[in-house]
Amino acid sequence: MIAQKIIEIATLGRGSTNITTEVERIVAASGIRTGLCHVFVAHTSASLMLCENADPSVRRDLEYFLARLAPDGDPAYEHSLEGADDMAAHLRTILTHSDLTLPVRNGRCALGTWQGIFLLEHRTHSHQRRITVTVQGE
Amino acid sequence: MIAQKIIEIATLGRGSTNITTEVERIVAASGIRTGLCHVFVAHTSASLMLCENADPSVRRDLEYFLARLAPDGDPAYEHSLEGADDMAAHLRTILTHSDLTLPVRNGRCALGTWQGIFLLEHRTHSHQRRITVTVQGE
Amino acid sequence: MIAQKIIEIATLGRGSTNITTEVERIVAASGIRTGLCHVFVAHTSASLMLCENADPSVRRDLEYFLARLAPDGDPAYEHSLEGADDMAAHLRTILTHSDLTLPVRNGRCALGTWQGIFLLEHRTHSHQRRITVTVQGE
Repeated sequence: MIAQKIIEIATLGRGSTNITTEVERIVAASGIRTGLCHVFVAHTSASLMLCENADPSVRRDLEYFLARLAPDGDPAYEHSLEGADDMAAHLRTILTHSDLTLPVRNGRCALGTWQGIFLLEHRTHSHQRRITVTVQGE
Repeated sequence: MIAQKIIEIATLGRGSTNITTEVERIVAASGIRTGLCHVFVAHTSASLMLCENADPSVRRDLEYFLARLAPDGDPAYEHSLEGADDMAAHLRTILTHSDLTLPVRNGRCALGTWQGIFLLEHRTHSHQRRITVTVQGE
Repeated sequence: MIAQKIIEIATLGRGSTNITTEVERIVAASGIRTGLCHVFVAHTSASLMLCENADPSVRRDLEYFLARLAPDGDPAYEHSLEGADDMAAHLRTILTHSDLTLPVRNGRCALGTWQGIFLLEHRTHSHQRRITVTVQGE
């Protein structure tokens, strides 16, 4: 069995959005009990991660870390047509994940207690982001 | 066909554990000859990687690299309730992989000669880590 | 349905090769309309990424970024038997991706407009790289 759905998420600019509920809803609707759930973001300036879901300071510290690692407006970047956040957004995407695959068990994503599925917006302005969720199994 | 099994690994604190044999055993037992093998770690302070499996100095150099990149006890971190390694462990997890998918071919994971599947423990103390392995194919 | 094919790519040393066309050809030949396409590189010094496919300056800036993050010939590396690029190549592999999974929709990889599938060669010399593509679906 295969189910495939597209979610649209309007981000508010750089930051993270917990999409676990949206993904779990698609898994539940698929009727699949055992298999895999694949989540894919069709952009090069937004990405996905699994991250601690309880304490928002983890995501604030991640922002501090990424801003230091791949700073906006590095004068060495050639690719800056869309602004100081343009190349930094591509680097943040490459260092995180465009796709995640999660085990489906007993009709749900078998995540750990503290794992949430997050969409990361890497541009400073808001964007509409398209996520494709595919569930395969039985 | 789908097979899904859970492995429990007791880590000895920060470091890597080669779990290739455990994963291959599940693939062999599944009877699946062609398809995919998905490996998933259900934690936010432990992760997975494919890495050179022959020379342990690669993993020592990786530890040196990660310790410099995402140091324990960075005074800028807010998230430090569980100790100096708390936020660093989340960052190391995000920078590596919570899930790996490997091709299954002729009833085995079609890894390269030098590729091993490693569980990475990012906390300084030992932990019990849960890994879900799902094999899909025919 | 499952289709599995192996592609061999001769790289020209450190740099990126757009393999989107080769992957799409395998998806089209499989006859699968809805499902997943898995791409896997069986090496520890070469990897995969999804990246902006239009402006080559993105990949030049990425090279600048990776060279600063994981420099060749860091005197702290123990693992240097094959040269100054040996350990740096393993680190670049771990920080990017050995496997990518892409949604298949309407018989094609449902990539975003600006997403290309790139093979990254991390060694300075040319190598023959083996990529396994597996398509599952219906």
